[in-house]
Amino acid sequence: MNKSLMTEKIIAAKESKGFTWETIASEVGVAPVYLASVCLGMNSIVPEKASVLAAFLGLEDDVTKALSEFPPKIWDQTVATDPLIYRFYEIAGVYGESVRQVVQEEFGDGIMSAIDFKLDIEREEDPKGDRVKIILNGKFLPYKAW
Amino acid sequence: MNKSLMTEKIIAAKESKGFTWETIASEVGVAPVYLASVCLGMNSIVPEKASVLAAFLGLEDDVTKALSEFPPKIWDQTVATDPLIYRFYEIAGVYGESVRQVVQEEFGDGIMSAIDFKLDIEREEDPKGDRVKIILNGKFLPYKAW
Amino acid sequence: MNKSLMTEKIIAAKESKGFTWETIASEVGVAPVYLASVCLGMNSIVPEKASVLAAFLGLEDDVTKALSEFPPKIWDQTVATDPLIYRFYEIAGVYGESVRQVVQEEFGDGIMSAIDFKLDIEREEDPKGDRVKIILNGKFLPYKAW
Amino acid sequence: MNKSLMTEKIIAAKESKGFTWETIASEVGVAPVYLASVCLGMNSIVPEKASVLAAFLGLEDDVTKALSEFPPKIWDQTVATDPLIYRFYEIAGVYGESVRQVVQEEFGDGIMSAIDFKLDIEREEDPKGDRVKIILNGKFLPYKAW
Amino acid sequence: MNKSLMTEKIIAAKESKGFTWETIASEVGVAPVYLASVCLGMNSIVPEKASVLAAFLGLEDDVTKALSEFPPKIWDQTVATDPLIYRFYEIAGVYGESVRQVVQEEFGDGIMSAIDFKLDIEREEDPKGDRVKIILNGKFLPYKAW
Amino acid sequence: MNKSLMTEKIIAAKESKGFTWETIASEVGVAPVYLASVCLGMNSIVPEKASVLAAFLGLEDDVTKALSEFPPKIWDQTVATDPLIYRFYEIAGVYGESVRQVVQEEFGDGIMSAIDFKLDIEREEDPKGDRVKIILNGKFLPYKAW
Amino acid sequence: MNKSLMTEKIIAAKESKGFTWETIASEVGVAPVYLASVCLGMNSIVPEKASVLAAFLGLEDDVTKALSEFPPKIWDQTVATDPLIYRFYEIAGVYGESVRQVVQEEFGDGIMSAIDFKLDIEREEDPKGDRVKIILNGKFLPYKAW
Amino acid sequence: MNKSLMTEKIIAAKESKGFTWETIASEVGVAPVYLASVCLGMNSIVPEKASVLAAFLGLEDDVTKALSEFPPKIWDQTVATDPLIYRFYEIAGVYGESVRQVVQEEFGDGIMSAIDFKLDIEREEDPKGDRVKIILNGKFLPYKAW
Amino acid sequence: MNKSLMTEKIIAAKESKGFTWETIASEVGVAPVYLASVCLGMNSIVPEKASVLAAFLGLEDDVTKALSEFPPKIWDQTVATDPLIYRFYEIAGVYGESVRQVVQEEFGDGIMSAIDFKLDIEREEDPKGDRVKIILNGKFLPYKAW
Amino acid sequence: MNKSLMTEKIIAAKESKGFTWETIASEVGVAPVYLASVCLGMNSIVPEKASVLAAFLGLEDDVTKALSEFPPKIWDQTVATDPLIYRFYEIAGVYGESVRQVVQEEFGDGIMSAIDFKLDIEREEDPKGDRVKIILNGKFLPYKAW
Repeated sequence: MNKSLMTEKIIAAKESKGFTWETIASEVGVAPVYLASVCLGMNSIVPEKASVLAAFLGLEDDVTKALSEFPPKIWDQTVATDPLIYRFYEIAGVYGESVRQVVQEEFGDGIMSAIDFKLDIEREEDPKGDRVKIILNGKFLPYKAW
Repeated sequence: MNKSLMTEKIIAAKESKGFTWETIASEVGVAPVYLASVCLGMNSIVPEKASVLAAFLGLEDDVTKALSEFPPKIWDQTVATDPLIYRFYEIAGVYGESVRQVVQEEFGDGIMSAIDFKLDIEREEDPKGDRVKIILNGKFLPYKAW
Repeated sequence: MNKSLMTEKIIAAKESKGFTWETIASEVGVAPVYLASVCLGMNSIVPEKASVLAAFLGLEDDVTKALSEFPPKIWDQTVATDPLIYRFYEIAGVYGESVRQVVQEEFGDGIMSAIDFKLDIEREEDPKGDRVKIILNGKFLPYKAW
Repeated sequence: MNKSLMTEKIIAAKESKGFTWETIASEVGVAPVYLASVCLGMNSIVPEKASVLAAFLGLEDDVTKALSEFPPKIWDQTVATDPLIYRFYEIAGVYGESVRQVVQEEFGDGIMSAIDFKLDIEREEDPKGDRVKIILNGKFLPYKAW
Repeated sequence: MNKSLMTEKIIAAKESKGFTWETIASEVGVAPVYLASVCLGMNSIVPEKASVLAAFLGLEDDVTKALSEFPPKIWDQTVATDPLIYRFYEIAGVYGESVRQVVQEEFGDGIMSAIDFKLDIEREEDPKGDRVKIILNGKFLPYKAW
Repeated sequence: MNKSLMTEKIIAAKESKGFTWETIASEVGVAPVYLASVCLGMNSIVPEKASVLAAFLGLEDDVTKALSEFPPKIWDQTVATDPLIYRFYEIAGVYGESVRQVVQEEFGDGIMSAIDFKLDIEREEDPKGDRVKIILNGKFLPYKAW
Repeated sequence: MNKSLMTEKIIAAKESKGFTWETIASEVGVAPVYLASVCLGMNSIVPEKASVLAAFLGLEDDVTKALSEFPPKIWDQTVATDPLIYRFYEIAGVYGESVRQVVQEEFGDGIMSAIDFKLDIEREEDPKGDRVKIILNGKFLPYKAW
Repeated sequence: MNKSLMTEKIIAAKESKGFTWETIASEVGVAPVYLASVCLGMNSIVPEKASVLAAFLGLEDDVTKALSEFPPKIWDQTVATDPLIYRFYEIAGVYGESVRQVVQEEFGDGIMSAIDFKLDIEREEDPKGDRVKIILNGKFLPYKAW
Repeated sequence: MNKSLMTEKIIAAKESKGFTWETIASEVGVAPVYLASVCLGMNSIVPEKASVLAAFLGLEDDVTKALSEFPPKIWDQTVATDPLIYRFYEIAGVYGESVRQVVQEEFGDGIMSAIDFKLDIEREEDPKGDRVKIILNGKFLPYKAW
Repeated sequence: MNKSLMTEKIIAAKESKGFTWETIASEVGVAPVYLASVCLGMNSIVPEKASVLAAFLGLEDDVTKALSEFPPKIWDQTVATDPLIYRFYEIAGVYGESVRQVVQEEFGDGIMSAIDFKLDIEREEDPKGDRVKIILNGKFLPYKAW
C-alpha cells in the first residue's frame, strides 16, 4: 500500500468516526501536528504506534505497515497558495533575515534544526479575538570549521 | 533618506558601538526581532521610538524620519537559500497542511494573521545541545460568509 | 465526497435546472461570488446553509457535508491566463504600489484583510457601454510593534 | 529626464512639503490612485495637468514633460511580496474564477477592461475596526465572433 | 458535456468527414481562426451558430450546448514550445516595444484590444516562396485619467 | 559605442528635435517599426542607411557604426507586463493553436518565418472607435524530411 | 488515433521485431533522427512513406494516417534533465554567443534555420575512445530591413 | 583584471583593428568558436597562446593573465531569447529524445561529452541559399555499473 | 514493459521478501546505490546481471528486458523538496564554487565526470552520533582547446 | 567592510602572492574547501584563525573582522550553470532518491546534516585518467516523533 492510498483510508475512517487529529494523537501518544503529518504521508512512526493508530481507526495491517515506512517528502507548490500556509512564507520573507541575526547573536553561527524538531499549537484567549500560538522548537546546530 | 541607506547607517553604528539587536531593542522597548525588522527596512516604528533608537546609536534626524516611514515589503528570493531561513520554508512544506488542519479543527475555518502578529525567540537549555524556540503568535481571523 | 466531485455534482445540477449563481445565492442567503466560491471548492459554509443549498439543487447529504468542510485553497497557475482574471493581476501590477501608498496615508501602516473580506459585483449602466463595478471590502489590519 | 528620475524628484518634493497624494490629486483634479500611478511612472497625464502638478510641487519643466510621456508598464516581481499588494493576488486566486462566472452570467462572454478603468478607495467606518473599500470600475468588453 | 470532450468529438467528426476549418467556418459564417478557437474550447458562439455547426458535423445537442458556454481561457505553457506559435512570442520580444511606441505615437497612450479583436490569415504569393500574412485588428483603447 | 548608449543618444536627439519614428523612418527609407527596432538595439541596418539616420538626427560616426552592428536580441521579461505588449502574448495563448492549424491546412507542415519577416501598422477608422491593424508578413518555411 | 497512441504502437512493434531506428529509416528512405522524431510524434511524413513505415512494422492504416498529421511540437521540461540532452543545452550556454558572432561574421546578420534543417549523426573512431559527431545543417536566413 | 574587463578590452581592440574572430583564431592557432569563447570569458587558454593573442591585439600582460584563468561558466537566461541561439534550444526540444535514442543504439548507454568536445562551423554553398553547417564532436562517455 | 511498471514490480517483490537494496546489490554484484538507481529506472544494467536480479526477486523475463533498456533520465522537481536530497542542493550552493576552485587548482581546467562516476555510502561511527559518509568518485575531464 | 569587498581583497592578495587555497588553508589549519568558502563569503571563522589568515595575506584588521562575521548564505542561480557545479545537481537528480533509500535502510528515517558537515577532495591516480574523489561527511540526524 502506498502512502497516498494510506492517507485516503485514514481520512475516510477519521471522518466516519468523527475523530479530530487531537483525539487520535492523544490515543497514539504523539502531538497532533506530528500525527497529522504521519497520516498525510510526510512522516513515519514506529510500528508499535502505527498498530495503535490503525486499531483505533479500525484499519488493517497494510495501513500499519505503510505508516512506518520512510517517505520522500514532496510538495508541489513552490510557494503554497493556501492563505494559512502562505502566511508562514510571508513571515519568513518579512522576518527571516531578522530571525537569522537574532538567533546567531544568541547562539553563534548555525541554524535551528528542522529535523531534530517539534511544533506545537496553542490557543491564547484574548478578549479582542483569540490568538493562535505556534511554537517551533529545534536543536541549535552550529557550523564548525574542519 | 531611503530605507537602504538607513539600514547601512544603522548597521555601521551598531557594529562600531558593539551593540546587539537585543541591547538596542530593550533600550527602545520593543522585541529584538521586531526591532531588527525595522532596522532592516521591513517595518516602521512610531516617531517617538524612532528618536530613541537614533539617539541611542548617535544618528541624525533623517534616520529617525526613515525609521517611521511605511515600507513596501520586498524580498528577492522566491525561496530563500540561507539554510536558517530555508528551514522555515521546509517546515511549511512538511508540516503546513498538518498545521492548517489542526488549527482549523480548533478554531474553525480561518487563518493565523501575519499582520496582527508577534514573534519571540527563546533559548531552551538541553544537555544534548541547546534548542531554539521560536514562538509565533497571531490573531485568529475567521472566514465569514457575506 | 471530496470537493472536486462536489463541484461536479453542483455544476451538473445547476445546469440541468438552469439556475444562475445569483438565483442560488439569494435562495441560500449569501452573495453570489461567495456562493460560487463555496461551490467551486474555495470556501465553506455552515451546515444549515449547506442543507438549503443541497435541497434547492436536489442533491444528497454528502454534498451538504462536503460544502461545510474547510478546504485548502489551491490554484495552479502562478499567473492566471484567463483574460478576465488576468486583468486583476494587471491592475495589481499597474496600481498596486499606488494603492498601498494611498491606503497607508489614510489608515496608517497595515493592510486590507483578504479574510475578513467581502466582494460584490454591480452593473453600472452607461450609454457608451455598461461598466462592471467590483467592490472589495476588507477590514483594515494595522501592523503593531511588539 | 527619464521616469525614474522624475519619480525621485516628485517624492522628494512631496516629502519636503509634507503633501499627501490626496492633497496633490485634488489640486490637479484627478483621483489619488491615478495621480500616484502617474508620479510613480506607471501612467501619463496631459501636459496641462502635468504643469499644474509640477508647479504645485515647485518642480521644473522637464518634470512636466516626463509626466506626459507614455511609459511602458513594467513590474519586476511575478507575484508581489508586499502583504498589501499580495492580498489582491490572493483575492484573484481565491475568487477569480467565481468572479468570472458571476460577471459573465450578468454581462455575457467578455471581460472588465483594465484600460477603460478607474479605481477608488474609501474608508468605511466600523466599530469593530474600520474597513478599506476599493471600488474597481471598468467598461465591460464583450467578445464578438468575426 | 465539458469543453474538452466537445473538442474531441468535433475533431473526430471533422477528420472523418475530411473537412478543414475553412470549410466549416464558411458554413457557420465566421472566420476560420475564430471557428477553430471555438472548437478548441477557447471561445464560445451564439446558440444559433452552434446548432449549424453541430448539424454540419452530424453531432448532438450537447455539443451545441457546450459550444455556446463561456470558457475560462487556460493555457499550460508559459512560453509555447511549438515553433509556429513560438515565433509570435519571438516577434513580441524583438518588436514589442517598437510596436508600442509606434502605436502610441499614432493613437496616444493606450493599447490594441485583444477582446474587441479579430485575426485573419491570408496567403501572399511570391516567386521566392509564398508568404503568410496574419492581420491583427483590434479596437484602440485609450487610457484616461479619472 | 555599445547599443544601449547608442539608444540613449538617439532617443535624446529624437526628443529634442521633436521627431516621431515615422518621420525618421520615411527619411531613412524603412518602415517605422523596423526603424524603431534598430534604434532600440534589436536590429541592424546597412551602413549607408545608418549614415542617413545619424545625419538626420545630428549624431556622430560612432552612432553610425553602432547602428550597423549585429546585436544579440535579449529581452528580460519572460512574459512582458506592459499591457500593449502582453496582449500579443494573450493572442498567442488564445488563438495560437488555432492559427497553427489554419496556417498548416493552407500551407502544409511548416511555420511563418520571424526572420524573413515584416510588420506594418495601420489605423482603421471606425465610428465606434478607431482600430489598430497590425499586419504580420513572413515567408512560409516548410518542414522537409531528410 | 492520436500521436501518443501511435508512438506506443510503433515502439511496441519496433521492440518485438528487434529493429533499430536506423533499420527502419533506411527502409523508409529518410535519416534515422528524422524517422525517430516522426515516430515520437514531433514531425510528420508524407502518406507514401507513412504507408511504407506502417507496413514494415506490420501496423494498420490508422497509424499511417497519424504519421502524416502535422503535430504541435510540445516538450515539458524547460531545461531537459537527461544528461545526453542537457549537454546540448550546456553547449548552447557555453558556446552560443560565440557561435552567433562567428556565424554572423561569415554570413551577415541572420540565423541558421531550425525548419529548413537536417541533423546527422556519425561515429568517429578514435583510439582514446570513439567520438560522436552530430552535424547540424540549416539554411542561413538573413534579416532584411523592410 | 577580471574576465569581464578582459572581454571589454579585447572587443575594443578587435573592433579598432577590424579583425574577425577567424583572423585572430588562425593567428593563435585555435578554432574561431573556441577563440571567441575564450575572449568572451567562457573558457581559458594556456599562457603561451594567451601571450600570442594579447600581442596580436596590442594588449598588456594582465589581459594575458586573465585569458589563462579558469572561469566559472555562468549564463543568465534560462532559455536564450536571441533567435540564433534559441534555435539550438528548439533543436534540442524537437530532436533531443530522437538523438538520444539513435546515439545510444549506436554506442550503448552513455552520452556525448560537452567537455572533451569541439565545435566547427562551415558554409555549405547552395543555389537556393547557402547553409550553415555546425559540427559537434564529443567523446562518447559510457555509463558503467560499479 | 515500461520502466515505471518495472519499478513497481521490483518494489513489491523487494518488500514482500523483506530484502534491502544492499542484499540485492551484493547478490547482483554491483553497489547498492547503483542497484537502486537501476531499479528506480534511472540506469540500466547488462542483461546477465538483469537476469540474476529478476531471478533473485522471482520476477519474469519482461522485467529482465526492462532492466537492460537505456532510460531517459527525467526528474520533476527543479529543486528537490525532500530534506535528505535538498541537502545535496544546499551543499552545492554553499560549497560549489569553492569545490570548483579547489578541484581546478589541483587538476587544471575541467570537471569531475558524472557519467564515468561512482558513489558509495559508508557509516562512520562516532560517539556524538554516527555520521554518513558519501564518496563521490568521477574521472577528471579536462577542457582542451581545439 | 562587507563580505564582497573582503572577498575581492583576499582574491587580489592571493593572486599577487601566487598562493593556492591549499597553501593558505594549511597555514590557517582548516581544510581547503572550508577555507575557500570562508574567503568567498559563505562561512565564517573564529577571530584567531581570521587573524592568521589576514596576516598571511598581508591584509588589515577590517578583513579579519569581516572573516569572522556570520553571513547569510545566498546564491543567485536556482540551478548552477557552471558544468563542474551542475554535475552535483545532476548527481542529485539521477541518484538522489537512491541515496535516500540506501541511507535510510542503514540509519533509519532521517538525513545527513549539511551543517555538522565536512567535505574533502582527493586525487585518485588512475592510468586511464586520474579521478576526483569528493568525500561528503555529515552527522546523521534522525527524525523523532514528539
